[in-house]
Amino acid sequence: MNVVIMGCGRVGAQLASLLDTEGHNVTVLDMNAHSFRRLLSNFGGTALVGNGTSEELLKKAGIEGADAFVAVTEGDNRNVMAAQIAKHIFNVPKVVCRIYDPLRKDVYEELGIEAISPTTIFAQLLKERLEHL
Amino acid sequence: MNVVIMGCGRVGAQLASLLDTEGHNVTVLDMNAHSFRRLLSNFGGTALVGNGTSEELLKKAGIEGADAFVAVTEGDNRNVMAAQIAKHIFNVPKVVCRIYDPLRKDVYEELGIEAISPTTIFAQLLKERLEHL
Repeated sequence: MNVVIMGCGRVGAQLASLLDTEGHNVTVLDMNAHSFRRLLSNFGGTALVGNGTSEELLKKAGIEGADAFVAVTEGDNRNVMAAQIAKHIFNVPKVVCRIYDPLRKDVYEELGIEAISPTTIFAQLLKERLEHL
Repeated sequence: MNVVIMGCGRVGAQLASLLDTEGHNVTVLDMNAHSFRRLLSNFGGTALVGNGTSEELLKKAGIEGADAFVAVTEGDNRNVMAAQIAKHIFNVPKVVCRIYDPLRKDVYEELGIEAISPTTIFAQLLKERLEHL
């Protein structure tokens, strides 16, 4: 699978490394080159510095042949913006983005973007953990 | 279940509201009173301003009769410190804490603290989502 990941924070870097280790073809974007320190030292994918909401950079990242696009920067707006570009301009089949704000999440899902809120997932998981400890 | 939650950020507030809605007896602590705005307006638990690593505040929060303690502030060190106080000084039966740094997580688990890393959980979940979309 060809995957483009926008945002090389903790989650982006871990996802990039996981997918790379499994043999997928990964390109990870970040506006700050220093973020790439989080990738595994044997990371075999591509790391590109730049803004993932720029169509030009997305093309350079291979968005036109991508099977999946994941937006996990710290900014909800940037994530949803990039996700929409990937989905509606470049027709990437699988597009997922992280949305911290649960209220926005509903709006984005109405726009056809698969939005995942880590807050909700984590609160739910803690609750289950307490119930089963 | 009597639950004390330290940290009323997004996750703490959502967990507090979830547990309160289900009829549990919830006390939530935060150093910043402004954080309590995140609780549901009909939140029926107790909100206490103060530092959850203070034994005095923990007693005020009812830690001595608590069935569970959850540490979800933004600081890994604070979380593990409070978790250890809850577990080893107050003998709370269920203690869970959030640890962002996956490397620290292993150390803390060796110390007998149930540590959950949202980074790892979320990266794994995104990967599964991509595989099944």
